[in-house]
Amino acid sequence: MTGEFKTVAIVGRIDDQRLAAPMRSLASHLTKSGVHVIAGPDVASQLDIEAIEESSLAAKADLIVAVGGDGTILYAAKLMHGHDKPLLGVNRGRLGFLADVLPDDMLEVIDRVLAGDYTSEARLLLDATIVYADGKTHTATALNDVVLQRKETGRMVDFETRIAGQYVNTHAGDGLIVTTPTGSTAYALSCGGPIIEPMLDVVALVPICPHTLNDRPIVVPANLEIEIVLVEGGAAKAEVIVDGRSIGELGPNDRLTVCSAKDRITLIHPPGHQFYEILRSKLHWGRDSRQRRSDDEQDA
Amino acid sequence: MTGEFKTVAIVGRIDDQRLAAPMRSLASHLTKSGVHVIAGPDVASQLDIEAIEESSLAAKADLIVAVGGDGTILYAAKLMHGHDKPLLGVNRGRLGFLADVLPDDMLEVIDRVLAGDYTSEARLLLDATIVYADGKTHTATALNDVVLQRKETGRMVDFETRIAGQYVNTHAGDGLIVTTPTGSTAYALSCGGPIIEPMLDVVALVPICPHTLNDRPIVVPANLEIEIVLVEGGAAKAEVIVDGRSIGELGPNDRLTVCSAKDRITLIHPPGHQFYEILRSKLHWGRDSRQRRSDDEQDA
Amino acid sequence: MTGEFKTVAIVGRIDDQRLAAPMRSLASHLTKSGVHVIAGPDVASQLDIEAIEESSLAAKADLIVAVGGDGTILYAAKLMHGHDKPLLGVNRGRLGFLADVLPDDMLEVIDRVLAGDYTSEARLLLDATIVYADGKTHTATALNDVVLQRKETGRMVDFETRIAGQYVNTHAGDGLIVTTPTGSTAYALSCGGPIIEPMLDVVALVPICPHTLNDRPIVVPANLEIEIVLVEGGAAKAEVIVDGRSIGELGPNDRLTVCSAKDRITLIHPPGHQFYEILRSKLHWGRDSRQRRSDDEQDA
Amino acid sequence: MTGEFKTVAIVGRIDDQRLAAPMRSLASHLTKSGVHVIAGPDVASQLDIEAIEESSLAAKADLIVAVGGDGTILYAAKLMHGHDKPLLGVNRGRLGFLADVLPDDMLEVIDRVLAGDYTSEARLLLDATIVYADGKTHTATALNDVVLQRKETGRMVDFETRIAGQYVNTHAGDGLIVTTPTGSTAYALSCGGPIIEPMLDVVALVPICPHTLNDRPIVVPANLEIEIVLVEGGAAKAEVIVDGRSIGELGPNDRLTVCSAKDRITLIHPPGHQFYEILRSKLHWGRDSRQRRSDDEQDA
Repeated sequence: MTGEFKTVAIVGRIDDQRLAAPMRSLASHLTKSGVHVIAGPDVASQLDIEAIEESSLAAKADLIVAVGGDGTILYAAKLMHGHDKPLLGVNRGRLGFLADVLPDDMLEVIDRVLAGDYTSEARLLLDATIVYADGKTHTATALNDVVLQRKETGRMVDFETRIAGQYVNTHAGDGLIVTTPTGSTAYALSCGGPIIEPMLDVVALVPICPHTLNDRPIVVPANLEIEIVLVEGGAAKAEVIVDGRSIGELGPNDRLTVCSAKDRITLIHPPGHQFYEILRSKLHWGRDSRQRRSDDEQDA
Repeated sequence: MTGEFKTVAIVGRIDDQRLAAPMRSLASHLTKSGVHVIAGPDVASQLDIEAIEESSLAAKADLIVAVGGDGTILYAAKLMHGHDKPLLGVNRGRLGFLADVLPDDMLEVIDRVLAGDYTSEARLLLDATIVYADGKTHTATALNDVVLQRKETGRMVDFETRIAGQYVNTHAGDGLIVTTPTGSTAYALSCGGPIIEPMLDVVALVPICPHTLNDRPIVVPANLEIEIVLVEGGAAKAEVIVDGRSIGELGPNDRLTVCSAKDRITLIHPPGHQFYEILRSKLHWGRDSRQRRSDDEQDA
Repeated sequence: MTGEFKTVAIVGRIDDQRLAAPMRSLASHLTKSGVHVIAGPDVASQLDIEAIEESSLAAKADLIVAVGGDGTILYAAKLMHGHDKPLLGVNRGRLGFLADVLPDDMLEVIDRVLAGDYTSEARLLLDATIVYADGKTHTATALNDVVLQRKETGRMVDFETRIAGQYVNTHAGDGLIVTTPTGSTAYALSCGGPIIEPMLDVVALVPICPHTLNDRPIVVPANLEIEIVLVEGGAAKAEVIVDGRSIGELGPNDRLTVCSAKDRITLIHPPGHQFYEILRSKLHWGRDSRQRRSDDEQDA
Repeated sequence: MTGEFKTVAIVGRIDDQRLAAPMRSLASHLTKSGVHVIAGPDVASQLDIEAIEESSLAAKADLIVAVGGDGTILYAAKLMHGHDKPLLGVNRGRLGFLADVLPDDMLEVIDRVLAGDYTSEARLLLDATIVYADGKTHTATALNDVVLQRKETGRMVDFETRIAGQYVNTHAGDGLIVTTPTGSTAYALSCGGPIIEPMLDVVALVPICPHTLNDRPIVVPANLEIEIVLVEGGAAKAEVIVDGRSIGELGPNDRLTVCSAKDRITLIHPPGHQFYEILRSKLHWGRDSRQRRSDDEQDA
């Protein structure tokens, strides 16, 4: 074994019945291939491999393999923040947008990746920072999206957006999504946002159920700081959610800023990987069974 | 053979390879069952059954069976206008919204229908009338929809709508769809219109790519007259399309009126037919393979 | 004073600076006109009129006048449930969908209403019932909408819908709105629902940010029972919100049913009231200042 | 007069009553300021200035001023293609997305521009090329958008898209818009496309009334070639429209390619110009008069 990936970390929910077998198979295959395999304590004890604190996995590994689905990828991405290590995603049973290796192909793909036969791409990350009224700050990093969401039942949240210091709009509704290209096929798509090519350095601001129908998604450069503040006199609080996890509340005198992170995350794909193929698979493109309106019409 | 359906008319595109066999099988089965089978000249000559002018089929038959798809149903519905005869639709290979019998089930369903084992429902029809500036009129009947569509390249059509004489809105865009519940799953759905339960006596006015984002679909009682006129000074002409066929142009001093027709059309369904089952099948409901955003998330 | 409205109840937020003056003016004008004016304790003490428990206002009054906006109308509607008394809404400064009398026109409209010169319409109400796993139930009545909403941060809620006992769909997303025609211009409009003529006996099921893009609004008869249950294995809880107020949580073994209420609510309008006029005003119809794409094009 | 703009060309519809006066005023003011003013024959004869063939205006002028609206800007942009000259747009009476100088401010803005006090930005242009089956080609350049549109009444157009040679999707519907950031606020916005920051080097592919609801707008890099071909067996023809003008039909064996043009167009703005300010003005942002659902709610 002389490849670049001498130490591989395995991440996944070993307690999920559907994942235990492929994770075991992966660990065993890697070990036989001469690779040093590590994992967090829970996974390591089940797989009989070296246990490392999860927070140290990214530092010690040359490659991280996340087994489970896009949610597990998001989790692994969080562990890897600040470490420029590549990530390979194995899905549980069907293709994911991020975890694009199927379990059946896993061992073959791993062999090719270890042999250097793969493509990689750097995906944009966003830093979301809550700047509290007292000057304290809390920052988290998003691979998918940063969501501002109303917290009070039956009330809209009112907030203002600024981009690079310029006032953009005053919004009212259920909230706002700031999405990376990676996140554009996740929650933002359900809210009317566009799909964005992963290689683009842009983010989309996608309002969630906006009160004003003219309040539409905007695509802006990723390196401009987006600032969001609540409007005085509106609902008192909103929640800030990064890649599906709450990082805190936004109060009347707090600010939320979102900007491209210094780091990127490197995703490893099998050779021949194509973004559009995954889109077609995930969005059922081409499988159109609604009766065509002019199909088989009869011309007397 | 003592059932209510003594004479059955078969309608379909006999020149379509995929349809000739099931139509032949259907004619033969009906004849063997003691039913008198008729068809238009083209179909009859291929199936060795009695030929009747298409325009007289509905008058002479007790039941019409349309083989081919929703387009063929729309065609048959046009033939049947003014005759209160039931219609059964056989689809070519997959379920249609209207033609909800699959070829493989055709003979069994026919036997049950002949034995009186079926459900029937009366579907709303719309009369669309162009009232020309000189007082002349042209009327056609829609099972799906009446569409006003811009005729000039690269220009919007500007028009006003009235309902029961009350001014509703001035629109600009690609046009407007007035859809029955039946048509709500056809073109109108692609333009943002709602799905409407087939039994409801309502129509939806669905703007096509409206310039103003606030110009939204409206659901109104079917028995109120909808009137559409072009706005002076806008694009000169629009086209009026009924169930996919142009019935003429609307000029600056013409009016288009749409109102529920006196007649309904009776659709025959196999026992156990459910609207929602067809919806689920046609719209892929339940087949969701976009990665769930919270799926398989890992809680460290 | 010999009209039908001998006792009038005034409802509104007397502590709102903008409302105190018109409410005072209204009470004084009514009293001078020989009408017996009543109000809840807070309002009555400010207006020097007879105080009645709010819960008894609807029983004692012949007419309720709500001053403040659509939110106040929703509140008054709640007070009036079970009492067939008419309701007149005065808005704070601009037209509301429900409160369609402007403060400046208030006294003149009141005089006409007292003289019998008005139109009235009966609006559909919905009964929303949570049937808990242990058989207990909790019911509330909606003039606008019943909303099922995910309760857990960053997770979708998964639920099934049935209409009149027939399985409709399995949904995933932020939730579902069951809206009356009255509520169709409120939250449901922000979620892609259609506008519905107030006189129609229909409801719309409008998914909120659905994961599956094919999960579209459906318009169904109001008298069919809609049933919603959570899907096992999904997020544990959802919240049920009726006209903007939470009425409880829906757990894994609970059911939410929604059906048209026995009662309606009678809204009083000034003579000449037109639904479309209010729509135009509220949705800025006709005020289109986005540059027309073919406007002023130059043909060389 | 020693500025950079020694010769200024005026473009506009001089036969439009509302434009003749400001155009006259502009020509007179420029002449008095020592600027050499030129125009096409029609305009020049009305304004008593030097007449130049329209096709030569861009070559001879240092600055083009288009008076009339966004349509006139599109027309001027066409004249200027291949010449790197700046363009200033004066609107007829309200702000345009492109023509962002109001008539009342025209002379003051012109003076500042002549004095070098302005901002400029380079906007992306797209080359649209129809490659006919016989190898012949026809190319046109778009500032706003390239539209593929179905040509036959009542039928959908079926077509395939490729980006940089990779198959993307097979579409059915009314057509597809390939829009620049500039065009994102025009027709594409009516079809559900996102708003795109003008400085971004991206295009959006926006399906027009797609049959499949999953067929959503995609944002891609502008420098990748987009290829569109009709699907065999579908409707026979589609039309190709560039900035609102038809440039020809696309037949079964033809190809349409769209890619960023080598040139850009330089737009001149008054100092302090902000994209978001124009968005707010054009889309009525901030003017929300639909009754807030939680507004003025009363808490008993």
